[in-house]
Amino acid sequence: MASASKSGDATIGVDLGGSHVTAILAGEDGVVSHRSSYDITDLSIGAVVKLMSGAIRDVSAKVASVSAVGIGSPGNIDLRNGTVRYSPNFHWVNVPLGDELRAVLDLPIFIGNDARCATLGEHTYGSGKGVKNFVLLTLGTGVGGGIVADGTLLIGNSAATGEFGHHQIRATDGFICGCGKIGCFEAQASGTGLLRHVLDCAPSFPRSTLLGDKPYDVGSKAIRKAAEAGDPHALAAWNRFIDDLARGIANIIAFLNPDVIALGGGVSSAGDFMLDALRPKVEELTTMAPKGAAKIVVATLGNDAGAIGAAVMARRGGLLSSLY
Amino acid sequence: MASASKSGDATIGVDLGGSHVTAILAGEDGVVSHRSSYDITDLSIGAVVKLMSGAIRDVSAKVASVSAVGIGSPGNIDLRNGTVRYSPNFHWVNVPLGDELRAVLDLPIFIGNDARCATLGEHTYGSGKGVKNFVLLTLGTGVGGGIVADGTLLIGNSAATGEFGHHQIRATDGFICGCGKIGCFEAQASGTGLLRHVLDCAPSFPRSTLLGDKPYDVGSKAIRKAAEAGDPHALAAWNRFIDDLARGIANIIAFLNPDVIALGGGVSSAGDFMLDALRPKVEELTTMAPKGAAKIVVATLGNDAGAIGAAVMARRGGLLSSLY
Repeated sequence: MASASKSGDATIGVDLGGSHVTAILAGEDGVVSHRSSYDITDLSIGAVVKLMSGAIRDVSAKVASVSAVGIGSPGNIDLRNGTVRYSPNFHWVNVPLGDELRAVLDLPIFIGNDARCATLGEHTYGSGKGVKNFVLLTLGTGVGGGIVADGTLLIGNSAATGEFGHHQIRATDGFICGCGKIGCFEAQASGTGLLRHVLDCAPSFPRSTLLGDKPYDVGSKAIRKAAEAGDPHALAAWNRFIDDLARGIANIIAFLNPDVIALGGGVSSAGDFMLDALRPKVEELTTMAPKGAAKIVVATLGNDAGAIGAAVMARRGGLLSSLY
Repeated sequence: MASASKSGDATIGVDLGGSHVTAILAGEDGVVSHRSSYDITDLSIGAVVKLMSGAIRDVSAKVASVSAVGIGSPGNIDLRNGTVRYSPNFHWVNVPLGDELRAVLDLPIFIGNDARCATLGEHTYGSGKGVKNFVLLTLGTGVGGGIVADGTLLIGNSAATGEFGHHQIRATDGFICGCGKIGCFEAQASGTGLLRHVLDCAPSFPRSTLLGDKPYDVGSKAIRKAAEAGDPHALAAWNRFIDDLARGIANIIAFLNPDVIALGGGVSSAGDFMLDALRPKVEELTTMAPKGAAKIVVATLGNDAGAIGAAVMARRGGLLSSLY
């Protein structure tokens, strides 16, 4: 049982994912003691808010009192009120998530971008613990990220610092991104990007059975497993995916010269199969920082990183807090 | 006359450029009171060091005493000793610039990257004064830069933070960069990049007289002037240059979400002709930060930015100082 649930000033962290909303109660040691999760696939904004507040009530019922709730949401967030200005993945524009939750919950609510929350979680308890210059890159349905420089999470002008997914790496020969641009890092190097490489390579592999009957439902894990097993179609797509991933990571190194870059999100479960292919390509593309200056590792908190980091954010009074 | 020269604890700033080395004496108000400059075109490292120490002696003779010298040099610098690890423009590898200067000058010597010094200069006295999240982008023979986040110049693991010039924007259809990669921002959007666009466009303009007898000697200023005057060849190249510049700047915004991006270096003398073309393209490519969040301006300290910033660096005891 986490210390927060005993001391009575527990904080709750919430992760708003593409398919589920999950609320957790995490102690100051980062250990998760309670959890509640609901499927939000295909639900409206109103229904998502209802299930989110339900999940928060579920875990808050486990403790004497809750001091604050932190929520990690996709998209660009107005940190002053918790409005989601824009989320290309949810197709949300100006959704007043903070105000809607405050109307039904009598608790301080702090909202931040999900990947920035995950960065805070990994930097506080996981792969970035004690690292001065740290970058988290989340490779899931989309690509997100966060930057810690000199030990501090960077926020920027409008809480959009670390949007690595929407930097262009293939302006003329890339895939169309959900944000409307061509060849964004997210379009090329997310889980969805990996599937796009598979579809794009398909004409060269007429006998491939990789895509099966429902080509758009093939998951990134199945593609990676097939590549690991030596399927030529999967391997061709995987290599193109790794190429694009390496380019984006080398760009992050050129900009930020971090000590550690951790890879999180679903795709990072590929582990050493990914790292072994990735590291030499990143080295080759790193020309200004000394070779090997940036260690590339897999993040350690797994799916809980965002919710754990959201609880840290709530404990600190939000991302605008002077504590940062 | 600057205050530093009266108080007797003057600091000297040095800019090591592609064609000249310039030493200046700047007061704590950033005003330059003395200057000495030598042409270093085609000279060896030893000869460059001799002229650099000569320029430092010239300006130090104007004051009672000098407390420290700061030098802005191209390339990646080992901040502990002032060794230039790698400079693609000078073709230098592991040049112990700091030790060579210390052998002939009895003064504390601090060396930093030239663009980072210029960032410090612009942030202290120029276009970035009072700006919390500031980026300087220097567009000259190469492309350099520096990042100020929450008021602090970022250094990173190995003093390579802000190497915007070596992030790839055209991995498959770009020009070859001095660092060996294809389609680096520097190869596409520096003064040299502008000339490359002119050469690349040339087959479409068989009657163009833009390149004249010595096509590799056409300067970026002449190209821009011709574009301003409506020369179709120059204008086609200029538009491609602005396109690539906009892509790189939009990538900087995606990563860093700054309040202000200032453009320095020789190419920035294009002023409004550049800004008017650039701003709408950057807006179009900025999808995650609110439109207009990053103001794009021309830097204000001109050619002196690097030397003035190097003097600031010296006054603060180098870039590794805990003052940052």
